[in-house]
Amino acid sequence: MKLPWKTLITDVDGVLTDGKFVYSSSGKMYKTFGPHDADAIKLFKKCGVEVIAISADVRGFPITTKRLNDMKVDVFQVSELERLDWVKEKTRGRKFAYVGDGFYDIPILKIASVGYAPNNALEVVKLSADVNLKANGGEGILWHVFEDFIKRIGGGLYKELTKGRIEF
Amino acid sequence: MKLPWKTLITDVDGVLTDGKFVYSSSGKMYKTFGPHDADAIKLFKKCGVEVIAISADVRGFPITTKRLNDMKVDVFQVSELERLDWVKEKTRGRKFAYVGDGFYDIPILKIASVGYAPNNALEVVKLSADVNLKANGGEGILWHVFEDFIKRIGGGLYKELTKGRIEF
Amino acid sequence: MKLPWKTLITDVDGVLTDGKFVYSSSGKMYKTFGPHDADAIKLFKKCGVEVIAISADVRGFPITTKRLNDMKVDVFQVSELERLDWVKEKTRGRKFAYVGDGFYDIPILKIASVGYAPNNALEVVKLSADVNLKANGGEGILWHVFEDFIKRIGGGLYKELTKGRIEF
Amino acid sequence: MKLPWKTLITDVDGVLTDGKFVYSSSGKMYKTFGPHDADAIKLFKKCGVEVIAISADVRGFPITTKRLNDMKVDVFQVSELERLDWVKEKTRGRKFAYVGDGFYDIPILKIASVGYAPNNALEVVKLSADVNLKANGGEGILWHVFEDFIKRIGGGLYKELTKGRIEF
Repeated sequence: MKLPWKTLITDVDGVLTDGKFVYSSSGKMYKTFGPHDADAIKLFKKCGVEVIAISADVRGFPITTKRLNDMKVDVFQVSELERLDWVKEKTRGRKFAYVGDGFYDIPILKIASVGYAPNNALEVVKLSADVNLKANGGEGILWHVFEDFIKRIGGGLYKELTKGRIEF
Repeated sequence: MKLPWKTLITDVDGVLTDGKFVYSSSGKMYKTFGPHDADAIKLFKKCGVEVIAISADVRGFPITTKRLNDMKVDVFQVSELERLDWVKEKTRGRKFAYVGDGFYDIPILKIASVGYAPNNALEVVKLSADVNLKANGGEGILWHVFEDFIKRIGGGLYKELTKGRIEF
Repeated sequence: MKLPWKTLITDVDGVLTDGKFVYSSSGKMYKTFGPHDADAIKLFKKCGVEVIAISADVRGFPITTKRLNDMKVDVFQVSELERLDWVKEKTRGRKFAYVGDGFYDIPILKIASVGYAPNNALEVVKLSADVNLKANGGEGILWHVFEDFIKRIGGGLYKELTKGRIEF
Repeated sequence: MKLPWKTLITDVDGVLTDGKFVYSSSGKMYKTFGPHDADAIKLFKKCGVEVIAISADVRGFPITTKRLNDMKVDVFQVSELERLDWVKEKTRGRKFAYVGDGFYDIPILKIASVGYAPNNALEVVKLSADVNLKANGGEGILWHVFEDFIKRIGGGLYKELTKGRIEF
């Protein structure tokens, strides 16, 4: 089975979350994560795909870490301006897919093998993505990336998916 | 009054909730449940229909349990992969309806007497459901299942419903 | 100035809120109230209209009370089945408007001088309302009721509203 | 580079938030802020534009302050009825842009050099705005204002934006 890419790097806020920050008078308290991403991450791993998350949000990083650890995904805190170089260093010329929704994701979407943007990403971001997903951030974006991945592999794998069990 | 089915098994996350998980730095803290489900559950019971909930979410199970107990519904923690067998064992050939929105709900929707999917279920799930509901998860899915149930019974019961009081 | 009605009775959950309940493992913790309702309530009072709220939600009543008190509106806990009689007793033949979104609101919407339903009310409820509002519950429903009220009064009052200041 | 305006005054609730208030039995606890606003504020500052926020919400002001301070924006508590005079005093005839979604924002939108309203602002408000944005409150409104600002400057700056890096 030939994989279109073996590394998936995803932004967190606006991709795995709805992009919103719930504040109390004590500060940033909550983020809202979506359904289906955890299922997609498990299936990606079964396929031998590595999933990595990055976030520029310093204040909310403990929240981000908690959720990503629950889904057994490594997450790195990388500032907006370092993001491009960090990804280049991490991938070193290997093929990779990238998912992002914000202004600082644009240069990375441009160099990714396949760049994905949620439906509610900024318009300037969607222009730079190869695939504009039908789902919004926090609505199971990684599942939708997984479906695209499976369709690229071909060989009837997507049909397999519609049966609710998939063997690789 | 002939009932189309007497057992309703429902997934929780993405059906009774909007599918989202609110995280703090301490972990999974909140789930958001919708309106009208509690009303539907009471009416189902008046009709003699048993309502059962299952969930694969281990970390959020105390939250799930709290809400389902408030609505006087039994809820069972069943892992994704055990789900199909659990349902078969629970129903033992009796007719049942099932509501689900995720990948691991597909095989159960296929064997249910009537399989229901929320409007925002995954596409691969909706393909396996008999009825694609107009409402999203957390928007009163069980009420919409109840309306479908009443229409299947027929005999003017739906018209009764539009009067705001219903007698069985 | 002749008012179409001088009493407005409103349901809380699904009208002043989005109808959802945020649960933790400790139970029902939060409700989400919308914008513009507080502004509408003040303007209704300036017109001499009394605004009253009722709710059947026992567990969430302390949350409901807190918000309604902040908006200086009296709120009463009335069970679903007592609701119709309670409203009759409260209004005693006087004209009143009613806003509701759920099954047990139907009989009251039918007897109200003007019955209003949010856009995302149940279909069976919307059939019984005189006015189906364009906004969903928790999106400023009372403001939309106020606009309808002003249009019924006529005499250029709605045009006044578009100037951002209104004198009665 | 000629700027269309050098001062941006923004309402908070319904613009930087989704307009909703999350209540517990202890009162107003949370507000939900959106994505992309923090990025836009940084870019506005790089351009030499001053961003100021005002809010009439007394009970929620500590929450508002916390988020605005995190984004390094000064926020002032100004009552609805004082709002127009406060803005006049603050701007003293200088050009300014204003963003608002509620009834009491109307007179200010009318006198602003450019008045912006979110997509889900009240209809009576949108009538008074020069620009009706495509995004709802809490969905990155200031980013959308920034895009409009950049387009007004012209000179290929918007195209620059689509590359993910912008130099002024």
